[in-house]
Order: sequence, then structure tokens, then C-alpha cells
Amino acid sequence: MRGIYLDRESELPLRRQIYQALRDQMTCGILKAGEPLPSTRELSTDLNVARSTVSEAYEMLIAEGFVLSSQGAPTKVAEGLAIEREAGLESAAETQPRHACKADFRTGRPDLRQFPRYLWQQTVNKAAEEMTTEQYGYSGAQGMPELRNEIVGWLFRSRGLDVNAADIFITQGATHALHLIAELLGGEGKEILMEDPCHTGMLRTFLNQGCRVVPMPADEHGLQTALLEHAARAQAVYVTPSHQFPLGGILTASRRASLIRYARGSNSYIIEDDYDSEFRYCGEPVAPLYSMDPKHVIYVGTFSKSIYPALRVGYVILPRELQALWLRLRTYTDVQNPILEQAALATFLGTRKLDRHIQRMRRVYGERRKALLDSIAHTFDREWHVYGDEAGLHLTVEFPGLSFDGDFRKSALEAGIDITPVEYHCIEKGTHRNKLLIGYGHLDPEEIRRGIELLHRHMEEYFG
Amino acid sequence: MRGIYLDRESELPLRRQIYQALRDQMTCGILKAGEPLPSTRELSTDLNVARSTVSEAYEMLIAEGFVLSSQGAPTKVAEGLAIEREAGLESAAETQPRHACKADFRTGRPDLRQFPRYLWQQTVNKAAEEMTTEQYGYSGAQGMPELRNEIVGWLFRSRGLDVNAADIFITQGATHALHLIAELLGGEGKEILMEDPCHTGMLRTFLNQGCRVVPMPADEHGLQTALLEHAARAQAVYVTPSHQFPLGGILTASRRASLIRYARGSNSYIIEDDYDSEFRYCGEPVAPLYSMDPKHVIYVGTFSKSIYPALRVGYVILPRELQALWLRLRTYTDVQNPILEQAALATFLGTRKLDRHIQRMRRVYGERRKALLDSIAHTFDREWHVYGDEAGLHLTVEFPGLSFDGDFRKSALEAGIDITPVEYHCIEKGTHRNKLLIGYGHLDPEEIRRGIELLHRHMEEYFG
Repeated sequence: MRGIYLDRESELPLRRQIYQALRDQMTCGILKAGEPLPSTRELSTDLNVARSTVSEAYEMLIAEGFVLSSQGAPTKVAEGLAIEREAGLESAAETQPRHACKADFRTGRPDLRQFPRYLWQQTVNKAAEEMTTEQYGYSGAQGMPELRNEIVGWLFRSRGLDVNAADIFITQGATHALHLIAELLGGEGKEILMEDPCHTGMLRTFLNQGCRVVPMPADEHGLQTALLEHAARAQAVYVTPSHQFPLGGILTASRRASLIRYARGSNSYIIEDDYDSEFRYCGEPVAPLYSMDPKHVIYVGTFSKSIYPALRVGYVILPRELQALWLRLRTYTDVQNPILEQAALATFLGTRKLDRHIQRMRRVYGERRKALLDSIAHTFDREWHVYGDEAGLHLTVEFPGLSFDGDFRKSALEAGIDITPVEYHCIEKGTHRNKLLIGYGHLDPEEIRRGIELLHRHMEEYFG
Repeated sequence: MRGIYLDRESELPLRRQIYQALRDQMTCGILKAGEPLPSTRELSTDLNVARSTVSEAYEMLIAEGFVLSSQGAPTKVAEGLAIEREAGLESAAETQPRHACKADFRTGRPDLRQFPRYLWQQTVNKAAEEMTTEQYGYSGAQGMPELRNEIVGWLFRSRGLDVNAADIFITQGATHALHLIAELLGGEGKEILMEDPCHTGMLRTFLNQGCRVVPMPADEHGLQTALLEHAARAQAVYVTPSHQFPLGGILTASRRASLIRYARGSNSYIIEDDYDSEFRYCGEPVAPLYSMDPKHVIYVGTFSKSIYPALRVGYVILPRELQALWLRLRTYTDVQNPILEQAALATFLGTRKLDRHIQRMRRVYGERRKALLDSIAHTFDREWHVYGDEAGLHLTVEFPGLSFDGDFRKSALEAGIDITPVEYHCIEKGTHRNKLLIGYGHLDPEEIRRGIELLHRHMEEYFG
């Protein structure tokens, strides 16, 4: 029989190769409706394979209705199989050339070189060993009870927050949490007030869910709550009160109180995104807004910065009235978190390994922050001001009189410097043109010093 | 000072206990705006703690703006802090009493008791050991390249499917895939034609995304594609062609061809959900629709049945024109899959451990299927017909003349039998009232026999 080429080295069994070749001939019309197939004896001789191999291929074709077989009569091609070939597929592979990066000032990156890999491996191993058979099955949309209990203890130790494990819902990180929260609040067409500037990724997450985002200006003390008086009633207000992203301020106590009064008065929710406040260099982590009103605040926490980004475990603390709906939405969105990370993280928290890791990293990041501040002071002759350096893995530098835009960013990239103007994270453009964001957590002091020198040289060239 | 109670046994540091107590007094108005705080010396004597502890608490209050401090003047409570107490929170805990289950015929449950835990643990351990530092960071929305390559080999070995790793996108299981596909196709208001009956969970996933679902009747040979001629143009058609859920048919070859012609003619997509076709008892797994037209078929695969449900790894094979949008959506939905399961699964596939596990389970499930068919034949005197037993972990039994509804389901549950009428999965109700779904993969032959006896006895009682 023409056109059947068998590859005897292939991992694909011969019966399947025969089946596929015949099927292809039928769908592209080489073998036509009603045409008889050769007998299994003929074809096996032709192809030099066992007759049973051909029979198996034919049985597959019969089972799927490609050919019809009736006692005694030869096997014939079924009706209506031919489909026209379409033009070849074009490749969609998009490859962007990336310049060699000499100074990587991107934000939100913990130093993975300092992650206690060996301890973590041991923890994963132990967790996998101790897993029960039931835990391999569907174990629930709310998340592993042991993990939720450990998070209660961790929130108490690290932030003095007193919550009930029943109010904690495990997520796959903060983005996933916001995606579900947008759905929870009604999605399509619902209004969300957002701090401006804010993290572009979080803005996108709300916009993709069809929310109408209303920007609310933030300054170095966080969201300007006085403006809430004139704001339309919204479904929710998104804030980062412990370390405003990207400007870095702590929302002041009186603004906290007005925000909560606004939420109560308009019966809306406050979405509190606490993305990196465990790394605080001046005093203790700030107390979450959540503790001031558990009925109006949705607290969003993540372990992406304190453990590692590819862990994909975060959590929300939800007001009671939203809990049943959340579970339904989660079940029909992605069912639940995988079990392995949940079990390992529960053990990591329970044995206080995370506490120790964070304590160590706070020291490490603190030294880097100092190296960065020293470098800036030492390198720049022109006027500059630093904001938001009291916590987290990044800070903001203002250079009065300069203007950083997309062009500047591109030119910097070409010079090997990956740095983001604050303007990039602005909803209303134009207010923060003179500020740059510097992520430093993942860089050692020497990398920081070299990076700042490079940046300085590039700015001299660019602005003349 | 009144009202500060310190718990010296607590894990919460004393400075934080003091800070919280004072903050609470300010927000509930016991300490009023402008009122001076006691000096650190006074308070430390009062509470019998070190003066530095009180100073630290005061510094936190100052940093967050709860109190104002100026050189020389006493520390005073800031303005606008008081917020009224709201009524106590009601508990939302919903606990449903569950009857002791003697016969668990739920569908979609692999036998986790047979899962090669020890091999899997070794694999996880090895994967964790070999992880690079970069892999702990953000490693991309498409999924780990090594895993995508292994899936290419696995699809080729198991289904004769020849795909490119660049077209594979890792997901967190099939539900997650459908959630994203609904968004990819436009979400809100877009029309999806769905096989009817179909899995209720998948229906919910589309409805939650705002899709308009149009039911298309399926029979024992899958979707009745002749009806497509009269259907309105839709964004996509959802099918389970290898083992229709729940009726169990294989979509016949001529229907496959018409379905593809429809998709081409109306420029819509076919969503092919291949949820359990590796467990096929009569011949080889059916070739995916995808192989017939990679430009119009979105293939959805999962490892929930072949490995374990709490793994949360699946994948889609996407037409090229949808790929860039998919990556954007995924990035703003939940960023990426966690790395641990991806690395472990890549190793599990690469060492052919999954192939061997499936081979073994196909034999185990095959014996259970036989036990179930024998039990049914042996137990029921009344007329019955079995559908869809050639593959998967469940089958359908029709009892002509009987009608299974929500009442029946409830009564069965009370008798300790968890069984689903096909009607439960119908969009248009009324067509499949006389059919029951029996999930058997997770039950051993003895559990199956006892379960069928119980079901028989209950049916005798219920229908008289």
C-alpha cells in the first residue's frame, strides 16, 4: 500500500503508525468514502509486520468509526471524513533580544541566592513523607487546615494580628487573590478606587476582570484619604498601607481611620495588600488595617517575597459575609492549591524556620539598603531625595528637575541598566516624572555600588 | 495606666502588647485626641517593664502617626483616630452533617491507595535537589520548558500526538484551563456550545465567566453534530470526544469531521477536554481531535486522574494566534504554576514512571470494571443497559422506566450511598432521567459488589 512509511526506531508502536497513516489518508481524501481497505493479510505482507499489528490498527479505526466493517464484507472507509487541508501554520514564537544586564534594579525580587535551600528541601521531603493518602485527593478550596493554623500563629508573632483560621483562605499568591477578589466583588463594570501610583500588574488584574478603576492620588503618606469625600461610591478601595507601592509611605493613623470610616459609610471593602512589610528596618512591622475592622477589610498576604516567588502560596483574610461565595468561585476557577507546597510551608512555619530566615534576611537587606543609600549620597552631585526606604526590597529616588519616561527606560536598558521610572506605575501620567524606583533586595552591596555608578554615568550622558 | 494587661507568657513581644493596647484605646476613644501619654518612665514603672520597651512601643505609634511627639513637649494622641465599634461578628461556619458513606460511587476519583507514594517522594526529593536558584524565582507563565518537553514525548507515546513544546501551556488542571479559555475567548456574553449532558463543574466555570452557554444534545456517540447546522455562530464548542462525560461515548469519525468543518466554517474553536482517555480498556486511547486541526482545536489535558488530584497540573495545547493573549491573561490571573510539582512531574515523565503507573492502573481499573459489570448483571433482575464502560473511571447505567431525581439522590445519601443521577449533569432537564452514573475507579472489587447490592436494595425500597 502506497504512502505508509513505518519508522521502526520510533517509540510510537507500529499499530499506531499504521492507524495514523490510514486515518490521515482518509481525512485528506486519498482514501475515499466507500473504498475498501486492503485485507489485514495483504497489508501485513506489504509492510512486513505481523498480521495482528494490522488487525489492531484496523480495530482502532473501526472503534472510532473511520472504517465500517461487517461480517464477511471487506472493511470500507466511512462517509464524510474528508476535510480540506488548511494553509500551513505560522510560527508565533516571539523572541525579544535582551541586552546583557549589568545593573538589575527591578522591584519585587528577593535574593534567592540566600534562600536556605537545604533546609527547605528537608522540609519538602518531610512533608511529602508525612502526607496522608486523603491529602493526595481533592482536599478543599479553602486550603490545608494545618497551614491555616500555622499562618494564624505567624501573623500573631510577626504582626500582632489575632485572627481565626476559619477566616483564612489560601491562594496562589497575591495576583491570584486580587483576581478572585475582583470576581467576588462583582467583576464587570464594578468600581474600584486604587491608589495612584500603584503596581501596574495589580492594576491590570482588576482591569482584565472588567472592573472600572478610579485612580486616587497617593503621596509620601499613602492614599490621600481626604479625596475620598468627593469620590463616587465604589465597591472597594485598594491600598498598600504598610509600604505604599511604589512611593513607600506608611498610611498614617488618621488616614487609616478616615479610610475605615469611608468603607463603613459607603458599605464598601478595603483591599489591604501587605506585600513586603515583614522587611522593616526602622522598628516593628506596621499593624495591618485588618485589625481595625475585620468586617470591611480584605487582607492579602503572600510568601513570594519571604520564601520564593515560584512557591505560589499566599492567603486572604475575608470578612465572613464573603466567605461562602469565595469558596464557590475558587472551586470553579482552579479548584484548590496543590498540596505539596501547603504541607511544606506548614512545617516550615511550625518549626519557626521562616521566622529565622526573615530575621536573617532583614539584616542582609538592611545592609544592602545602607549600601544603596551610601552609594546614592556618594555618587550624585545633583539634588536628590529618597522615599520609602524604611521597609521592603526597593526605594524611590526623586531627582528634582529631571524627567524619566519610556525613552529614558529604553536607553537605560540599552546601557545594561534595568530600572523603572515611577511614571510607569502611574494611572494618571505626569505627576511623578522625576522619580525612579530602585529594587535592591536581590543585589549584594558591590552590585549595588557598581549599578549606581552605571546609572549615574548613564544619567549624565542622557540628560547632558 | 489603666487598661493595659500584659501577658508575659505570650509569644507577642511586650513592646507590641503595649503598642496594641494604646492603639486600641485611641481608636475606641478612651484616649482622646490631644491627650498626652504618660512619660516612658512613668509607664515602665507602672507596668514593671524596661523603659526601652515602652520607648519602642511609643516609636511604633509615632511612626504610624497615632501619636505626635515634638522635642520637649509630651507625646500626644493625634486627631481623627476614633472609630465606632461595630456589632460583633456572626460566625459563618457552615457545617453540613455527612451521613456515613457505605457506597461511594462519586466520579472522577482515582484510587489514591494505589498511588506509588514512595517513588513519587523520591522523585520530588530529586527534583528539589536539582532545582537551580533561578527556578525559585519567576520562571514564566508558559510553564517549565523541561516539563513541556516531557509532555511532548508523553503525548506521542500515549496518543500518537505530534506537538511542539512551544504550543504547550502548563495550567493548574482542567478547571483552571477552562477558566482561562473562557477569558481568552472574550468572557462576558460570548456564546459557547456545550455538549448536554456535560460536567456540571465545567458548565459552572463557563457560566461564572459570563459566557452564554447553549446546550447541544449528546447521545451515546457524543455530540450530535448534525444539530450544528442550525446552531447560531458561537465562539467555541466544548466537547469530550474521547469519552463523553457523562454518557461515555467516543465521538465518531464522521462527527469529528463535521465538527471540524463547523469550526472552520464559523471560524470558531473546538475545546477538546481529554480528561481520562489514558484509561481505555478496549484497544488504544482514541486519537485527539487536535491532531486533525491544530488551528481550530484547543486541547485540554490533566494529570489529576493519572497522578493525583491535589497535584494541580494540567496543560493546554493552543492554536498559535491565541498564545500571546494567553500569556498576558495568565500573568495577570495567577502568574504561573508553582515550580516543585512541575519539576517533579518532568522527572516522573522522563523516567517513564508515569507510563508504568498508568499501565498498572489500567489493569487494576479494568478488573474493577469487570467486577462492576458482573455485579450489575448478577444483582439486577429488572432491565438495564450500560454505556461508556470502555474507558475511564466511571460508567452509566440506564434503567428503563425508572426516574432518578434529586429526591432519589437524597434518599440514597441517607442510606449511605453517594451516587449521581445523569440528570444532575444535564443542562436541559428531562432527557436522561433513567440513568445513573457509577464511579468505580477508587473502589476495590469487594467494595463495588457491596455497593451494588446496597444500591439494589435501596432502589427496591425506593421504587417499590
